Amino acid sequence: MIHDEMDSLAQEIRVPYYLRAGWAWPIPRSATKNHNCLQGRKTARRQAAWPTSPSAWAAGKARGLANLVVIEALDVLGLRPIKILFTTMAAALLATTAFTADPIPADLRAMALATFKALPSTTPAVVNNPITPEKIVLGKALFFDPRVSASGVFSCNSCHNLATGGDDNLETSIGHGWQKGPRNAPTALNAVFNIAQFWDGRAEDLKAQAKGPVQASVEMANTPGQVIATLKSMPQYVEWFSAAFAGDADPVTFDNFAKAIEAFEATLVTPAPFDGFLNGDDAAMTSEQKQGLTLFMEKGCSSCHAGTNVGGNGYYRFGIVEKPSVDVLPEKDEGRFAVTNTSDDLYVFRAAPLRNVALTAPYFHSGKVWDLKQAVAIMGTSQLGEALKEEEVDLIVAFLNSLTGKVPEVAYPLLPAETGGTPRPVWIKEGSRGSIGR
Amino acid sequence: MIHDEMDSLAQEIRVPYYLRAGWAWPIPRSATKNHNCLQGRKTARRQAAWPTSPSAWAAGKARGLANLVVIEALDVLGLRPIKILFTTMAAALLATTAFTADPIPADLRAMALATFKALPSTTPAVVNNPITPEKIVLGKALFFDPRVSASGVFSCNSCHNLATGGDDNLETSIGHGWQKGPRNAPTALNAVFNIAQFWDGRAEDLKAQAKGPVQASVEMANTPGQVIATLKSMPQYVEWFSAAFAGDADPVTFDNFAKAIEAFEATLVTPAPFDGFLNGDDAAMTSEQKQGLTLFMEKGCSSCHAGTNVGGNGYYRFGIVEKPSVDVLPEKDEGRFAVTNTSDDLYVFRAAPLRNVALTAPYFHSGKVWDLKQAVAIMGTSQLGEALKEEEVDLIVAFLNSLTGKVPEVAYPLLPAETGGTPRPVWIKEGSRGSIGR
Repeated sequence: MIHDEMDSLAQEIRVPYYLRAGWAWPIPRSATKNHNCLQGRKTARRQAAWPTSPSAWAAGKARGLANLVVIEALDVLGLRPIKILFTTMAAALLATTAFTADPIPADLRAMALATFKALPSTTPAVVNNPITPEKIVLGKALFFDPRVSASGVFSCNSCHNLATGGDDNLETSIGHGWQKGPRNAPTALNAVFNIAQFWDGRAEDLKAQAKGPVQASVEMANTPGQVIATLKSMPQYVEWFSAAFAGDADPVTFDNFAKAIEAFEATLVTPAPFDGFLNGDDAAMTSEQKQGLTLFMEKGCSSCHAGTNVGGNGYYRFGIVEKPSVDVLPEKDEGRFAVTNTSDDLYVFRAAPLRNVALTAPYFHSGKVWDLKQAVAIMGTSQLGEALKEEEVDLIVAFLNSLTGKVPEVAYPLLPAETGGTPRPVWIKEGSRGSIGR
Repeated sequence: MIHDEMDSLAQEIRVPYYLRAGWAWPIPRSATKNHNCLQGRKTARRQAAWPTSPSAWAAGKARGLANLVVIEALDVLGLRPIKILFTTMAAALLATTAFTADPIPADLRAMALATFKALPSTTPAVVNNPITPEKIVLGKALFFDPRVSASGVFSCNSCHNLATGGDDNLETSIGHGWQKGPRNAPTALNAVFNIAQFWDGRAEDLKAQAKGPVQASVEMANTPGQVIATLKSMPQYVEWFSAAFAGDADPVTFDNFAKAIEAFEATLVTPAPFDGFLNGDDAAMTSEQKQGLTLFMEKGCSSCHAGTNVGGNGYYRFGIVEKPSVDVLPEKDEGRFAVTNTSDDLYVFRAAPLRNVALTAPYFHSGKVWDLKQAVAIMGTSQLGEALKEEEVDLIVAFLNSLTGKVPEVAYPLLPAETGGTPRPVWIKEGSRGSIGR
């Protein structure tokens, strides 16, 4: 049956086609090389290769490569999406077999390089924001400065704590007036490599993202005007802005504030054992980690968690196969739907980037799961339709541990002193500067 | 009249005498050398030299040296305190004279060294807590770890932010459940040199202090047991404790937690231009700063703000001469009275250490005054009974700026990752672990 469906699908999409963000496509090994299709909405419609033949696809599937495929194929003109849903019994068939980890393929590195990308050894370039030392210095100060919040209590680092994996290790963050935020704080580490920012990708890059929390009423509850008044009140900040944005007539702006933070965040790159392996060092990963990596690709995890950040570069429904419990997937958080207002995007989120995942419990946008093993198991059932064996989960977690990288040493900054003109903290909720309900 | 009062006082206290903590005594130049009497309750009763003659004292006073003397003299046997209160019209008389700053005395350094002490060039020794590199590493991690709070939101650094002068630049700190603390957070910088900790000195040292906020319901709202459970759940912490307290059978204890934090805090020493001057470098301070230092001693500020920390080593009534407004001195905060239950200690606080004071607005235990000039002026009227001229205030502020030191570079720590055994954050007020009303 699967073969028949595949054949018919293959007929339909023999021409070049595009995959739309929001749908997972587990790619068999043979096709991973050109698999670069899992991107955000804006840049999603990239070409990707299809399995060389339906039988190759099915063969891969029989090896447990893929358990579910949800494809929305668009024709060459981008018209009339065709949605095709496959489910498979392969997992059930395999489940009866005693567990033996697949041997580590001889070409594991080549396979991995077709799917993943090692971190660069230098700070990556950022669109519309040349990274300079002056911007980094300024951005670091801003990242750590609690005075950009209305209350003077929260800095960027409060929720994206560089001491604890770039996040705050809370279910969801606490913000202005002790309000609880709606989603788990994602890590700031390597965030520059994400296709877009926030769980729903509503910010196209880090400079757009940096403008969000500072204004959100449940986070920093401030206003751009007040942020700029605060920064302009301190001569050292004006100097730093002038140095970082030397060409600007009025360097202290909310745009430049965001650009400087982006510049600092672009430096937060954490090379890990996995990168060592990708770069040719066989000893960088343990045998267990390599087995985990093999499984991670074979099971189809790498379909969504691919690229530089092992995730962070595409949008997928949470619960493709099986809807997680309402605890894990709160019904009231409809994900990317709120951004696109498209029913296809109900419960769709950006696949979490998995770098440093061992440091960033609790997991998922709801922050409801504290145990990485449990998170992997839930992903197995909800996204792959497969009850992963405990040994498989262990190996995958071993691989995930190889993504724990070296956080760059950050000298804690010394911030400018306040002056008579610095706006005073506002900590009462009624007096908060941000609008309610953002 | 002043002369007569002085003569009569001199008769009474011709014998050696002791000054009691809680009372200010502006000392004329000639006597500053031996003036080391302004200490906390425990070590307060030290001998001090009296002005060589009543006329010398009065002569000093006529130069605006002292406007008010409140002395509690004890006889040689420590019996029957005699309280004598002097007020003077000298300030009013001088106020009609055009302002000319006193020339900088040729022996300014010698005078200053009789009252102040330069910061040591090495980390100071701490009673009952030998400072080791292992303790410092551990203490730094604990200082920056928000997981020692019940909510997982606040670390020591939240309120004692090393980026902003070792305090949080808030009127009073925000803590668990968005509660507002009762007093302005003092700086952690150089706090090791204070005679005791907290505004009311209720902790005899930094290790005693470190146990407070973690348990206070309005701050971290945690319990010692929960702190230790949290730390023991993370193997890296257990290793760090074992290295720092190698001789201990059970190294991860609340006592050791506090000792490690004290060890780290002992490294937070900030040498300033003032120290350069005390150590022999004439160019370390500007002429204006030296004039300010001269005034600071002549006006009597240095009677309470003396020693290594230019304060922090004795207890004094806030409002010796004139009670500040209820905004600045909230009636419901009775200061050290709450510690000693002695009426003499009503509104008595530890004199604020003035190192880095330019970085630590807002001022006073109430945190109600944001402007350093205003704070100096209030001290003039409330403690010295003198309306300082604007030019005098400016010079004193110039001197205070010479106390802004070089904060040691602190590499932001990387904290151990949480494990399955790590207690989960508790952020609801009802469920807070600390008792209410501490």
